[in-house]
Amino acid sequence: MVEKKGSILTVREDIKVFDCTIRDGGLVNNYHFTDEFVKALYETCVAAGVDYMEIGKNVSPTVMSEEEYGAWNFCKEADIRKIVGENNTSLKIATMADVGRTIKEEIPPKSESVVDMIRVATYIHQLPEAIELIEDFHAKGYETTCNIMAISKSFDDELDQVLETLSKTNVDVIYIADSFGSFYPEQINKLTAKYLGAAKPVGKKVGIHAHNNLTLAYANTLEAMIYGTSYLDVTVSGLGRGAGNCAMELLLGFLKNPKYKLLPVLKFIETHIVPLEKELDWGPSVPYILTGHLNEHPRPAMKARDEGDTQYVKFYNKLTEEYS
Amino acid sequence: MVEKKGSILTVREDIKVFDCTIRDGGLVNNYHFTDEFVKALYETCVAAGVDYMEIGKNVSPTVMSEEEYGAWNFCKEADIRKIVGENNTSLKIATMADVGRTIKEEIPPKSESVVDMIRVATYIHQLPEAIELIEDFHAKGYETTCNIMAISKSFDDELDQVLETLSKTNVDVIYIADSFGSFYPEQINKLTAKYLGAAKPVGKKVGIHAHNNLTLAYANTLEAMIYGTSYLDVTVSGLGRGAGNCAMELLLGFLKNPKYKLLPVLKFIETHIVPLEKELDWGPSVPYILTGHLNEHPRPAMKARDEGDTQYVKFYNKLTEEYS
Repeated sequence: MVEKKGSILTVREDIKVFDCTIRDGGLVNNYHFTDEFVKALYETCVAAGVDYMEIGKNVSPTVMSEEEYGAWNFCKEADIRKIVGENNTSLKIATMADVGRTIKEEIPPKSESVVDMIRVATYIHQLPEAIELIEDFHAKGYETTCNIMAISKSFDDELDQVLETLSKTNVDVIYIADSFGSFYPEQINKLTAKYLGAAKPVGKKVGIHAHNNLTLAYANTLEAMIYGTSYLDVTVSGLGRGAGNCAMELLLGFLKNPKYKLLPVLKFIETHIVPLEKELDWGPSVPYILTGHLNEHPRPAMKARDEGDTQYVKFYNKLTEEYS
Repeated sequence: MVEKKGSILTVREDIKVFDCTIRDGGLVNNYHFTDEFVKALYETCVAAGVDYMEIGKNVSPTVMSEEEYGAWNFCKEADIRKIVGENNTSLKIATMADVGRTIKEEIPPKSESVVDMIRVATYIHQLPEAIELIEDFHAKGYETTCNIMAISKSFDDELDQVLETLSKTNVDVIYIADSFGSFYPEQINKLTAKYLGAAKPVGKKVGIHAHNNLTLAYANTLEAMIYGTSYLDVTVSGLGRGAGNCAMELLLGFLKNPKYKLLPVLKFIETHIVPLEKELDWGPSVPYILTGHLNEHPRPAMKARDEGDTQYVKFYNKLTEEYS
């Protein structure tokens, strides 16, 4: 059992609010956000006192098509600078590297980039390649994280091995990522203990990236935070793949540090999210509850939502059939 | 600190799943549910292994208008029997009494009713009258609960006094009711300890009725359950006042007791909730987050939703002005 860190009224200086609206939201619209939207979000994050903004992925244009995906799937330096200029603010800029899709030779040294942090998303079996990326980015001068995906499917003591291995690298933050939105607060509690056990002795921090399939993204984020997780991923109005993420407006309303401001986020929601809700579909619904319960990838649920399929009994029977 | 009761894989025989779809959902549509809807829900609850179904309120027709409110605000014996007949099932039927609106002389003895339980909803200042109702219903042969409302606004040690007083009555279950949807799991944990401290030594059970303003209804229900709360209020798809309640389909997917079945609930959702979602508005949204954060009654948020008002900055400024 881990110990609580602070109380419900404490200001925790280690907390970092990490916005990933564009990066996770881009999975809903293939990164086709307008510059106006991204710029308004950037200004919102600055005004709200958010610590990091992940502006997209740094996938190589040689791997994925620039016809199919918008600019924020690639995060070219010139595109980022169009939004943030020299970024003379206290908000740090992050991008996400996908193992197998990011080519490290294309990533400039930090001295030539406004990006402060690169997060490396990896499946367990890709760990050696993820570490290669992490060490390359670290050597180039970036802060780095490792976001280990799909851990709810990890076998036996694989996850312990992964954490042990990562503790010996130069990565700064190790992320608990609830890729299938299937974890309960009790399980997040145990994972927090496990991750901190590996990270804390070597001076690394732990982060949490929650999904809302079981409507537990906020609760799981709070649970992880209470027990010592520092980096807290949020997106405005939970915008993100499938059931979405922990909502920034929920978390900022909870945090007691006066540097965080809610009003700029409300302004962004009424101006930019309200119209977007008419175009894009995200957030909790029955299909995501079912894939979450079954600890399955939300892919079939996303398909059902796309098709407006509300035959939930059939959907559930099909999902559970796959097990037999 | 309270102890955990069971583990994430345990079957807890003390757990009672309590459906209050009609009673809390009736606050959204003034209890104008069709008999077909109520009957289908009843059959769903039976098939799903749900323990109790609260079929409405037993308000006196001399107090509220039968023109304005549907049958389930009054729960006349004949109306209930139209749905449940003699109710020869393992599902128990409950109604809710409102202090000041239910007239105890109108409630028949249990021997003349298919109702098994009457829940008494009370504000702290109404407690003596609530106890009068509880003792009357108990003497008539009903199971009883006391649902203490708006406790997040209770002053100083008022709540301790209330619990101490209730522990000396014949009430069977004492409910933690999160009327404003403003509690965090940490607080629910402490409340669970407090309520169990009063209830357990005298052989009473504790229940939880959560609201979803901060998207924490399910998480709070799980937290209360894990630490020993037995009666768990749910509504299908969270149907209920404002941001709604803990969803039955979420809870049933978690509980390990094989007597609970999810499929009948999915069937009910696709047949009866999907069309209802086009008519009625409930569930989490920004205005409820804001009243939840501020520990305020959701009334202004309900008004904003009714009017389709998405000017969240203005809404928030108005809410916070009231404090000055």
